[in-house]
Amino acid sequence: MTDIFCPGDERAEGVLDNAALLAALVAVEAAWLAGTVDAGLAPPTAADDLADLVDPVGDVELVAAGAEAGGNPVIPLVDLLRARVADRSPDTARWLHRGLTSQDTMDTALMLCLRDAADRVLADLRRQVAALAGLAERHRSTAQAGRTLTQHAVPTTFGRTAAGWLTGVLDAADDLALARDALPAQVGGAAGTLAAPAELARLAGAADPAGTAMVLAGDLAARLRLRAVAPWHANRRPVTRIGDVLVACCDAWGRLANDVLVRTRPELGELGEAAATGRGRSSTMPQKRNPVLSVLIRRAALTAPLLGAQLHTAAAAAVDERPDGSWHAEWAALRTLARTTVVAASQTAELLDGLVVRPDRMRATVEAALPDLLAEQRSIASLRGGAGVNGDAGMHGDAGEPGTTTAAGYLGANHLLIDAALDRANRLLADGP
Amino acid sequence: MTDIFCPGDERAEGVLDNAALLAALVAVEAAWLAGTVDAGLAPPTAADDLADLVDPVGDVELVAAGAEAGGNPVIPLVDLLRARVADRSPDTARWLHRGLTSQDTMDTALMLCLRDAADRVLADLRRQVAALAGLAERHRSTAQAGRTLTQHAVPTTFGRTAAGWLTGVLDAADDLALARDALPAQVGGAAGTLAAPAELARLAGAADPAGTAMVLAGDLAARLRLRAVAPWHANRRPVTRIGDVLVACCDAWGRLANDVLVRTRPELGELGEAAATGRGRSSTMPQKRNPVLSVLIRRAALTAPLLGAQLHTAAAAAVDERPDGSWHAEWAALRTLARTTVVAASQTAELLDGLVVRPDRMRATVEAALPDLLAEQRSIASLRGGAGVNGDAGMHGDAGEPGTTTAAGYLGANHLLIDAALDRANRLLADGP
Amino acid sequence: MTDIFCPGDERAEGVLDNAALLAALVAVEAAWLAGTVDAGLAPPTAADDLADLVDPVGDVELVAAGAEAGGNPVIPLVDLLRARVADRSPDTARWLHRGLTSQDTMDTALMLCLRDAADRVLADLRRQVAALAGLAERHRSTAQAGRTLTQHAVPTTFGRTAAGWLTGVLDAADDLALARDALPAQVGGAAGTLAAPAELARLAGAADPAGTAMVLAGDLAARLRLRAVAPWHANRRPVTRIGDVLVACCDAWGRLANDVLVRTRPELGELGEAAATGRGRSSTMPQKRNPVLSVLIRRAALTAPLLGAQLHTAAAAAVDERPDGSWHAEWAALRTLARTTVVAASQTAELLDGLVVRPDRMRATVEAALPDLLAEQRSIASLRGGAGVNGDAGMHGDAGEPGTTTAAGYLGANHLLIDAALDRANRLLADGP
Amino acid sequence: MTDIFCPGDERAEGVLDNAALLAALVAVEAAWLAGTVDAGLAPPTAADDLADLVDPVGDVELVAAGAEAGGNPVIPLVDLLRARVADRSPDTARWLHRGLTSQDTMDTALMLCLRDAADRVLADLRRQVAALAGLAERHRSTAQAGRTLTQHAVPTTFGRTAAGWLTGVLDAADDLALARDALPAQVGGAAGTLAAPAELARLAGAADPAGTAMVLAGDLAARLRLRAVAPWHANRRPVTRIGDVLVACCDAWGRLANDVLVRTRPELGELGEAAATGRGRSSTMPQKRNPVLSVLIRRAALTAPLLGAQLHTAAAAAVDERPDGSWHAEWAALRTLARTTVVAASQTAELLDGLVVRPDRMRATVEAALPDLLAEQRSIASLRGGAGVNGDAGMHGDAGEPGTTTAAGYLGANHLLIDAALDRANRLLADGP
Repeated sequence: MTDIFCPGDERAEGVLDNAALLAALVAVEAAWLAGTVDAGLAPPTAADDLADLVDPVGDVELVAAGAEAGGNPVIPLVDLLRARVADRSPDTARWLHRGLTSQDTMDTALMLCLRDAADRVLADLRRQVAALAGLAERHRSTAQAGRTLTQHAVPTTFGRTAAGWLTGVLDAADDLALARDALPAQVGGAAGTLAAPAELARLAGAADPAGTAMVLAGDLAARLRLRAVAPWHANRRPVTRIGDVLVACCDAWGRLANDVLVRTRPELGELGEAAATGRGRSSTMPQKRNPVLSVLIRRAALTAPLLGAQLHTAAAAAVDERPDGSWHAEWAALRTLARTTVVAASQTAELLDGLVVRPDRMRATVEAALPDLLAEQRSIASLRGGAGVNGDAGMHGDAGEPGTTTAAGYLGANHLLIDAALDRANRLLADGP
Repeated sequence: MTDIFCPGDERAEGVLDNAALLAALVAVEAAWLAGTVDAGLAPPTAADDLADLVDPVGDVELVAAGAEAGGNPVIPLVDLLRARVADRSPDTARWLHRGLTSQDTMDTALMLCLRDAADRVLADLRRQVAALAGLAERHRSTAQAGRTLTQHAVPTTFGRTAAGWLTGVLDAADDLALARDALPAQVGGAAGTLAAPAELARLAGAADPAGTAMVLAGDLAARLRLRAVAPWHANRRPVTRIGDVLVACCDAWGRLANDVLVRTRPELGELGEAAATGRGRSSTMPQKRNPVLSVLIRRAALTAPLLGAQLHTAAAAAVDERPDGSWHAEWAALRTLARTTVVAASQTAELLDGLVVRPDRMRATVEAALPDLLAEQRSIASLRGGAGVNGDAGMHGDAGEPGTTTAAGYLGANHLLIDAALDRANRLLADGP
Repeated sequence: MTDIFCPGDERAEGVLDNAALLAALVAVEAAWLAGTVDAGLAPPTAADDLADLVDPVGDVELVAAGAEAGGNPVIPLVDLLRARVADRSPDTARWLHRGLTSQDTMDTALMLCLRDAADRVLADLRRQVAALAGLAERHRSTAQAGRTLTQHAVPTTFGRTAAGWLTGVLDAADDLALARDALPAQVGGAAGTLAAPAELARLAGAADPAGTAMVLAGDLAARLRLRAVAPWHANRRPVTRIGDVLVACCDAWGRLANDVLVRTRPELGELGEAAATGRGRSSTMPQKRNPVLSVLIRRAALTAPLLGAQLHTAAAAAVDERPDGSWHAEWAALRTLARTTVVAASQTAELLDGLVVRPDRMRATVEAALPDLLAEQRSIASLRGGAGVNGDAGMHGDAGEPGTTTAAGYLGANHLLIDAALDRANRLLADGP
Repeated sequence: MTDIFCPGDERAEGVLDNAALLAALVAVEAAWLAGTVDAGLAPPTAADDLADLVDPVGDVELVAAGAEAGGNPVIPLVDLLRARVADRSPDTARWLHRGLTSQDTMDTALMLCLRDAADRVLADLRRQVAALAGLAERHRSTAQAGRTLTQHAVPTTFGRTAAGWLTGVLDAADDLALARDALPAQVGGAAGTLAAPAELARLAGAADPAGTAMVLAGDLAARLRLRAVAPWHANRRPVTRIGDVLVACCDAWGRLANDVLVRTRPELGELGEAAATGRGRSSTMPQKRNPVLSVLIRRAALTAPLLGAQLHTAAAAAVDERPDGSWHAEWAALRTLARTTVVAASQTAELLDGLVVRPDRMRATVEAALPDLLAEQRSIASLRGGAGVNGDAGMHGDAGEPGTTTAAGYLGANHLLIDAALDRANRLLADGP
């Protein structure tokens, strides 16, 4: 069900919602069961396809109703799976989940869900990169006033602005791709010793039960295409690492949405969101066209940092072989952070695809600000022109030798900086999805 | 739909969920419409009961689908109300929402929802106060080792511990009752000037249109039993004030859950959660009885502070007559914070109602620690007993004159401190709900 | 030493710095010693004035060097006091600090320091209230475009804007005055039982040692003009309560600084910071006049919420009779939050005292935006003018009956809203400092 | 001056304090000046060694006093450098800082300071790795009760616990080494266009002024051994990236400190901090030996996440070519976060070097808990032993076939997991500092 507290929430449909988590939990149990059967630890009769046992939408209330008693949704889900498969396959009922602890299933399922979220975000980051590369190229010579601390500084171009946004988006994409590929499976058993898998192996007559348990853990990761790492029940860096990067994505979009919001103000008028039927309406003012995409992206950027901090706070509070509340604190924070990021990714892609750029307004601002925009240039010219020793006077006095008189004469290395950003963009886009 | 990322979520049923918000939004529109009709600004034919026009559950997707375009759910809701009432009452369709802006409706509806949340929490705080008063009274002489920085300090009693928890809960209850009663309505119109209500009044021939607008704003507050204050579109203290107090509630419960978690460790064994069928099970270890209520309360305490900080971050980012994203950032944070608090309130009440106290284990710990637990007392005795001038020696050397040899002899003002907490508890309980 | 990571830090000189804390710690020990002597628990020969024993600046390194070993600065300070007073008064050395635990001294000293900080902030809030009242009055009819979600909305006046800022500042002042007056002393002894003070009373022959201990605790509060409450070693609401309000102050200033920053942009040009020699310089652009006060106030508003959240996170992590790290986490957060607030308070007062208002620029913007700024008015007029039933058409179509054609005709209840804010301001200013 | 609000602060001496920042700022200006001279943009007569012009300690107040006016400490520092070098070398006075903006200098200097901090932390992480590898090896067979959600779970060994801590520390070390090597220089000039360096090149007759500017920017990075990247004035990922990793370090230490704190409780008594004169004293209880290192490490872990979030909040608020407050918000947060991390790194290394391990207490706990600790094993045995189909019954009923009766028989893959952690540790230690 779409969340009306989060306009745009439908863009994250299927990402870390109840159904996605339920389906992922079942997928983890199924992969583990298949692994134990294939390794000969469980009997062949235990093999079964669990996917049809649970209705990820219809069974939510049933699982939810049992989640509090055990502290997490895995316990009622395992009960449910066992009850439903018992008639069809008693051995499946008996053997499923053996060797795991609920945290193994939950953590691994969350990683699967986060991978889906990351893939959605990466696809939208690619859209953003393409859109920004286009803007940077098209507007590489579109003069614009550079603004620092809110005031006019020196000239720049809108292409340079777009290249700056692009660099931020590329940094986010690079970091997210790495973090996505580093998502690990979790297999540790009750206290991170793999005792139960090893015991299953021992009872099955394995020569090296411990080694078999390690192989089994690696096998789960391989089946689910996650990384195999040491159990991380109480070492939550895998969670904070992806969390930090999701926040960084929102930071990058927040920065560009801030720019759009400022430059969409009627007094600047340099940028605008694409017109769309009903988009940006007010409930009372007929003339209004609010920049709602930027507003909602900014919303995400304002909230994501604190969601990321929840993950770190939880990580830092871990204790024992498996922790007493800090683990439980991660789930909703991860869900909200990932969905917030997915929604904002999509909104940003749409914003950039339709961004209205008004070179005339940019130029008008530059021209009105021109003498001041070139004050730095004149100050530098005065260095060579024989101004006095006193740097301060040189900074504030009149320059003996005037510099250029148009913005085009003081654009520094903008072309090279744009080229560098486009090179990165092209490499990313060439890599394919 | 219950959130399976939040075990125990069903305890917050009806609190700040989609349906509750939708119903509250309709209630605000209905109250405003009634006010404008009663004041003669809208024609009597516009009067209508809006409550039956919307199905707070069934219409969620419809409203959600339109929320992004306008940036908030009020805009599609007003469309929906107008479309559905048009045949029945064209004048209602034409006049409803006139004078308001979407933020007026949304802010006021959230305050109504927060009042419901606060009432739920206050009821559970009363249950907690009653339970804690009982524990403090029953165990006022139950000896227990005082622990500071994890180490045994001086003797205390479990009644004193309970009185300490009680004080925290009473502080939370006092603060919440005040904050609940301070929840304001929001009526400012498009830019906080009440221009539209005044214009309605002017067109209706009011002698003092501005004064009528002020009266109308106060009337909405009165109809909804909220406080009438100046428009707070960009002054978000009403939001952070209730948010801060909800966090403070979770802090108080977190502290006592931490105590329960430590003292439920088998090596201490002084406290335990009530046994209940299925409660505290593990998915793999048959012997396990996990203190899940405390675990889940601790979860809330770990996350609430960052949710509260989201509200302040948003408040601090406000700009213009109505802000561009920071307002939108509040909704989900408020919802999650309020629901988290409601769930934790209920879990804490249940935890305390069933708390298992083991005086024998407490006594055994005290006896084992006894010589050390009285080291401070001996140090003080040595002051009178003629130990040397050197304070440091007095602190660490042997005391010439032994103090008492049982914990009971060194319990300070525990009885008076317990009495003081019970006095506060009794006053709160006597006040009635 | 001024902190160069915090431009403007010198405005907080003497507030919660090393010297202020050291002096406050000594003041608490002195007050407690005086109380024990006056109550007859310590011998008259123990009476001494401790203030001259420590150089709050010169002794910082000495105390700091010993702080880690005991985990807090009180322990080395008590050693220092004892060593230095031993020759002059052996009984003082022996009796000082008896009955307290280090947390009593530290918590109480921090409350004294926070009261100083609050007083500084309250004084600047009064300056702000006076300045804003002046702006609201002077500009009550200065037309300005109301802006919502960055776009022009309906007309307003700058006096109304100032009144909105004023309301935020008044809310902050009200909350801070209450929080300041609620700052409590801390006296609990080793584990919050007052065992040591009661033991001192018992050894001195008191009839009711527990009652005497309670009186003694109240006496310390009275001597220091703090509130007497139950020990709060592990119930940290007194800390989060003042912290929340300090954050709320920064929120209020952040909001107004955001407005100044937007309206100081050259394209708007409606507001400006007062010119001052060297103020707002760039290191490279001679023409620059950056709005540095607003920039630095905004800085405070961006950081304060997370500092406040540190206090809640710490409060929620408390455990045992005195906690194992969460208490220690408060100090630097409180210091930084309080100093940040004091600096921002002063900067905001200065900003408002010198704020440059440009009615001509405001008027020009209104005039350029005028047809749109009155679209809501026309829409309302059309209600009476017989437009069709369809509300949506009425919202977006042309109004049959034109409304006013100047901003002055659509200013709603601005005068009354300004009056209400001025009334509150005048009451606060009349109350005296 | 050591900060008495932060016990242990002296461990961070020289890290991101006033003097370190001042020295780094001068180093950046010196490197840039050398680069412009060497490139022929400034005359040879401008070459000078700036290091002796400023006393990083003595000049703090002077620079601080001027920092507010310009909004950052670079502006007064450049004034100071120019004034002091003017007599000795007028050309140095005239040419220094030309081509940079204050943010270039400040950002680059902070990166230098952060590299120093990272190096300090990396050295302590190596110490920790060595200590933990020793503990994991020595105690690989030391039986210990595994604890989950505070309750006894299955057996493990203390070597496995140490290997788990080690994995967390290794993750932190890997991430920090990468982040340290990625620290970039900042050269963008007034608005990120490199206009001023290009203008200097043009005036000096360079054939390709833009290309020369790019080379010059790369040259600064090379001189300071930082990475050369595109200007990041408003793209703050370089700041959040190092910040996130510093937080992750504190998370890892917090987790192990939490374990030490729990297991140092007298009722568990499995671990202890090394005894040291005066360490862990109470101000009132002679018997106390508080685990202060762990307490102070936990303090760091409680505060670091919120400091990291400040950086993200600031990053997300960036706007324009250089932002209006969010940049300024970073400095103190970065300083406090880095120093907090450096202190905690050192305390953790010391904690681990001296950690007291009590295998007898661990064994006693295991033996007391033994029947329950093997419940999972019995449950698994029953799978093969013919227990009924009903998984639930199998989970909670008695197992027909008993498993092992000592913890040693149910330790799973502990040896292999320990070996894997030791392998990682040895690789890191072999790499050399």
